[in-house]
Amino acid sequence: MDEFEIIRRLFVPDTRSASVIVGVGDDGAVLRPQPGTDIVTVVDTMVAGVHFPAALPAEDVGYRAVVVNLSDIAAMGGKPRWMTLALTMDHSRSDWLDGFAAGLMSAAAEYGVELVGGDTTRGQEIVVSVQITGEIATERVMTRSGAYPGDGIYVTGTIGDAALGLKRLLSRQEDVPHPNGDDFLLRRFARPAARVQVGQEIASVATAAIDLSDGLFADTEKLLSAGGVGGTIEVNDIPLSDAYRAATAASEKWHYALSGGDDYELCFAAPQSAFEGVLEVAGVPVTRIGTVTDERRLTCTRNGKEFPYQDSGYRHFNEP
Amino acid sequence: MDEFEIIRRLFVPDTRSASVIVGVGDDGAVLRPQPGTDIVTVVDTMVAGVHFPAALPAEDVGYRAVVVNLSDIAAMGGKPRWMTLALTMDHSRSDWLDGFAAGLMSAAAEYGVELVGGDTTRGQEIVVSVQITGEIATERVMTRSGAYPGDGIYVTGTIGDAALGLKRLLSRQEDVPHPNGDDFLLRRFARPAARVQVGQEIASVATAAIDLSDGLFADTEKLLSAGGVGGTIEVNDIPLSDAYRAATAASEKWHYALSGGDDYELCFAAPQSAFEGVLEVAGVPVTRIGTVTDERRLTCTRNGKEFPYQDSGYRHFNEP
Repeated sequence: MDEFEIIRRLFVPDTRSASVIVGVGDDGAVLRPQPGTDIVTVVDTMVAGVHFPAALPAEDVGYRAVVVNLSDIAAMGGKPRWMTLALTMDHSRSDWLDGFAAGLMSAAAEYGVELVGGDTTRGQEIVVSVQITGEIATERVMTRSGAYPGDGIYVTGTIGDAALGLKRLLSRQEDVPHPNGDDFLLRRFARPAARVQVGQEIASVATAAIDLSDGLFADTEKLLSAGGVGGTIEVNDIPLSDAYRAATAASEKWHYALSGGDDYELCFAAPQSAFEGVLEVAGVPVTRIGTVTDERRLTCTRNGKEFPYQDSGYRHFNEP
Repeated sequence: MDEFEIIRRLFVPDTRSASVIVGVGDDGAVLRPQPGTDIVTVVDTMVAGVHFPAALPAEDVGYRAVVVNLSDIAAMGGKPRWMTLALTMDHSRSDWLDGFAAGLMSAAAEYGVELVGGDTTRGQEIVVSVQITGEIATERVMTRSGAYPGDGIYVTGTIGDAALGLKRLLSRQEDVPHPNGDDFLLRRFARPAARVQVGQEIASVATAAIDLSDGLFADTEKLLSAGGVGGTIEVNDIPLSDAYRAATAASEKWHYALSGGDDYELCFAAPQSAFEGVLEVAGVPVTRIGTVTDERRLTCTRNGKEFPYQDSGYRHFNEP
């Protein structure tokens, strides 16, 4: 089966929206944005053994490859529309490819993104690069910079689940069938949610936003330093799931929440008045975890007292 | 040096056009197409050892990664604007990365494309995936389908040079410095030209177009079968460079032209009246090599007599 047949068989959606003038199968895709909107484009690559373990089922790899990109679109406040895929793999993996395509197309359908092109190439290892283009009203673009001293720092959902899920996945035997099954923490790693709707709804009030891929502390630090500001995080206010609480000993209670990556929740800054009494946006919990300051560094408190924490940034799971 | 620093140091252009609202360094790029235009997007991946040999200098890998994508934009009739890069490589290649970035940025500058985002990841082998978005007026989009019986079949430039250049590159020692130097055929492989201006100029008259990446016969076959038509190629009319003629024996005179890939010239169909007496477009030679028929197969002639030729399609250089 050659490259063209692979793409045609597995990756061509049944229907095509009117915005796709030319889709998969030509030299390029021709797309029609809504008049008066700008476009937002993101790209994210996942390498087998670096960004996900071999034990992750192919369906989850495909699903996750889409969501991690959607999460970047969400962090900008955009509306995702079209996707291209660059897939490198070795020849002998047609079973893997079936699962991967099923997961990828399922995420695309769930979030209303259309696959419009791609390139499938042969290589020694699996490299999945997804690029998503969306629409955005420029006056509502969220960037990383813009957080202002006095703003609240907010996160969506619960934090640290995915890092615990990954830890659990790595501790399992590789031949366990359906490793994600009903396990909440595992699913949070394997099937993260992209907060696309939240991103669009907060875009007009948030002063800055980022998605949480590398860990809460490291990503919040990026957000604040991009705006030339600092902040504090009150660790007791970090939203933790019941499963997280049950799975962590007292000594590591905040470890995975602060340093674990892969949650793909949003972290954003906004005037406190805008989120006074707001508990959720688009059905997703939103929690204030801290405050932007003008001190140019991020520190943590616990019950208002200094809580020493240092983070050198997330390292992919098999890096030293 | 972490991912972010790599990107910042090597891949950030000095200036940014007004169309780039948010560029490299945020979660995504925000771009502003001209009002009233559609966008065209292409993606192409090159894997070391599959799409280019290890002996190809890093500068050429970077340059070529841009041009092969521009060539797809050219084949659609689009105007390239913005580029993202997904680069996978191992950690220990900072010298390689310097050269790669220099080549990539030099092609981007030459063709007026802006790098607006990317992702650099670690892996065992070098995988370069470039995605380019351009603007296009929909009434001028060229697709692969649309060739009409009686149309002429045309190509730009000269054909088969890159395949001979690749052959020469592979026969050299890996430690030869500057393998591309002044060698015309080698340069045609290492530094192909994308026919972007030609694509835009022929778009209103050509009925179908494709770029020549997999070989003249195989790609022309794709073009014709996409339109449900066939055609003939008169091999004596295929434009061959002096260097090509000098490098090929009589027995293989058309072999590299018909089956060799990597030329990145355009092949298109158009009413014969539109190109009567036209010898070049945008300074690039344009040659009629055949005629579209309604026979649903592609055949070759030599001086008007049947010239038996079969092609199973281009295979990357190290495939069986």
